[in-house]
Amino acid sequence: MHSLSPEQLIAGIRKSQRDEPDSGILRAVNHGFGRDGLIPLWTGEGHLPTPQFVCDAAVESLRAGETFYTWQRGIPALRAALAAYHDRFWPGPFSPGRFFVTGGGMQAIQIALQLLLDKGDEVIVPSPAWPNFPGPMRMMGAVPVFVPMQFEDRTWSLDLDRMRDAIGPRTRAICLISPSNPIGWVASRDDLIAIRDMARAAGIWIIADEVYGRFQYDETVERAPSFMDVCEQEERVLYTNTFSKNWAMTGWRIGWLQAPEAPGPAIERIIQYNTSGTATFLQRGAVAALEQGDEFLGLQLAMARAARDRAAEVLGRHEGVSFELPKGAFYHFFRLDGLDDSLAAVLCIIDDANVGLSPGGTFGPGGEGFLRICYLRDPASLDEALERLSRWIASRNG
Amino acid sequence: MHSLSPEQLIAGIRKSQRDEPDSGILRAVNHGFGRDGLIPLWTGEGHLPTPQFVCDAAVESLRAGETFYTWQRGIPALRAALAAYHDRFWPGPFSPGRFFVTGGGMQAIQIALQLLLDKGDEVIVPSPAWPNFPGPMRMMGAVPVFVPMQFEDRTWSLDLDRMRDAIGPRTRAICLISPSNPIGWVASRDDLIAIRDMARAAGIWIIADEVYGRFQYDETVERAPSFMDVCEQEERVLYTNTFSKNWAMTGWRIGWLQAPEAPGPAIERIIQYNTSGTATFLQRGAVAALEQGDEFLGLQLAMARAARDRAAEVLGRHEGVSFELPKGAFYHFFRLDGLDDSLAAVLCIIDDANVGLSPGGTFGPGGEGFLRICYLRDPASLDEALERLSRWIASRNG
Repeated sequence: MHSLSPEQLIAGIRKSQRDEPDSGILRAVNHGFGRDGLIPLWTGEGHLPTPQFVCDAAVESLRAGETFYTWQRGIPALRAALAAYHDRFWPGPFSPGRFFVTGGGMQAIQIALQLLLDKGDEVIVPSPAWPNFPGPMRMMGAVPVFVPMQFEDRTWSLDLDRMRDAIGPRTRAICLISPSNPIGWVASRDDLIAIRDMARAAGIWIIADEVYGRFQYDETVERAPSFMDVCEQEERVLYTNTFSKNWAMTGWRIGWLQAPEAPGPAIERIIQYNTSGTATFLQRGAVAALEQGDEFLGLQLAMARAARDRAAEVLGRHEGVSFELPKGAFYHFFRLDGLDDSLAAVLCIIDDANVGLSPGGTFGPGGEGFLRICYLRDPASLDEALERLSRWIASRNG
Repeated sequence: MHSLSPEQLIAGIRKSQRDEPDSGILRAVNHGFGRDGLIPLWTGEGHLPTPQFVCDAAVESLRAGETFYTWQRGIPALRAALAAYHDRFWPGPFSPGRFFVTGGGMQAIQIALQLLLDKGDEVIVPSPAWPNFPGPMRMMGAVPVFVPMQFEDRTWSLDLDRMRDAIGPRTRAICLISPSNPIGWVASRDDLIAIRDMARAAGIWIIADEVYGRFQYDETVERAPSFMDVCEQEERVLYTNTFSKNWAMTGWRIGWLQAPEAPGPAIERIIQYNTSGTATFLQRGAVAALEQGDEFLGLQLAMARAARDRAAEVLGRHEGVSFELPKGAFYHFFRLDGLDDSLAAVLCIIDDANVGLSPGGTFGPGGEGFLRICYLRDPASLDEALERLSRWIASRNG
């Protein structure tokens, strides 16, 4: 017999793949996905399906037979729509040549990392941070260098001196997620200028995840501060983004990368050798989202604001629960006094309370002791989930 | 001003990304895509759009609101359908646990390479070979080691001793595409046993691209010989495959990876950090393709056989054109006597004859001097393309 044992098979894969742990979000989801009555607040998606007008555009394209290979960078109509969309909200003008359609925001990150990182290269990552940045870095043999943020007096802050000190000879990039998943912190214009200047001084890249750039709660503006406000177009900044959040398209797996034009051919090759492009009919839906999606996004934002405040009120009643009210995105990231194993707590909450959360520890240094909920749910489900969670917290305190 | 020059920006990306040339297929496509009246025979797709019953299944799912994140390995219904499909044509039984849904056959290859390869690792690749195997290897810092196949007396053959001699201490895998893109060669059962034995002896993996396994012209069998005939399920073999070819779904970007069960969690992490899964509604279409797609595949095969023979007849009339009649896939890979720059010829044929071909040189050692056409077209377009190509060849000879 030539069958091999699991140990023999696993010994044959790349060491960095063998050593990488599952993300705590994936562990929670795989523990609870599909359970009867479970209310899932673990991943970053709401309860609404994709709006009808987006689906209609995709269906029309599919019915018209747009089922062939297409441009690796994305169809011209979507790249033009992305440029026009950016012209509306950020200082431009933007050329369609800056935009690359990707198989989701995650794929945009993967492409950015493949473009920049060699084995042993380092990337600065303020934490707590979405684990889907450091995970793929480690898997390709690069090294995330975490800069823990401070949580004091129920307020998060980023120590810019500490970030500057973390830059070394192998540093290739700084990753910034703002508005932040998971903590809801939003970088100020001054923060962005300081980070820009340290990147310029070191000759390194910025990877700017601005997925939640329009999903923010300052009603006096239409979007959060952006590196687009303070950087040149032709400098070392890569922007990763997605259609998932604004337009309830998480399951579509479509996003975009914005980059300076010079490395365009290299980015196109990376797309070619990863996914070979994105389905045209999905891209037609994305065009509709950009062009007709303002009202839907406004609806989502209003729902999210109410849900944020409702969840803050309920969580705030508990002794030993602390958090900052998020300024953007749609998560509460709350500390539970005395919690030292957030993954165990999350699995226990799934079993005991039938609510799905994400463990803070999976978000890197500074995250252990916290739990994350996505509050973008219909009010009835959210209330039910908060009640179940409250009972669990109360029984723990009791 | 802080704008950087193109040279400065490109100097900032990873060297292996900077140094990788565009594939000749991409260069041809970017030279000619969208030209009025151009007949595209350059990529591996036919002229038929995706069949209606596949589109219907996707539309129904989209209309039902299946637009949320889903299982990273693929929806259970598709993994079960893949197992049942494999049970019909290959020696099983197959467990759904062996199957991973991917964003196309290309993504399946990318996942396999990420799973196995560290910087400096080597992979054996018989050539001419589809450039989308060696390209991503080089981009991740691994080294494709080509084993050129022989073309003598209008017949391709693989020198197994030469392959064995190419295995060294850094070799991690052997890639085999059979039936072959671009040459239409089909490995015999004895070839597969010999390759299996050398992989076992060296303790290395086989990456088996069996995309054209059912797209073959021996009417006495339903599929080509497969590593599934001669290997254990739990040994070091990864199978990459796609829905693109059999069911005219090239533009959908959906495929699958078949693997032993032990590295499953590592593969799932790689999916998570590359694409975060494949749209559920696309997967519903794929289920329909597997379960109801036999008749459509039969129609495609009959068309392909007639097109193959028609193209062989026309090309065969020319002095200085030589090729082997393909046993599988849907390409003619023909040598033009005296041709030494296949890319220049392809760009010239686009300009002069308005037909899109692929340059043989891009398929690696042994490919220069050849041109590739995909003949899976409707008879009228194919005849027109062959006539234009014939005039071009005749004018060149004259």
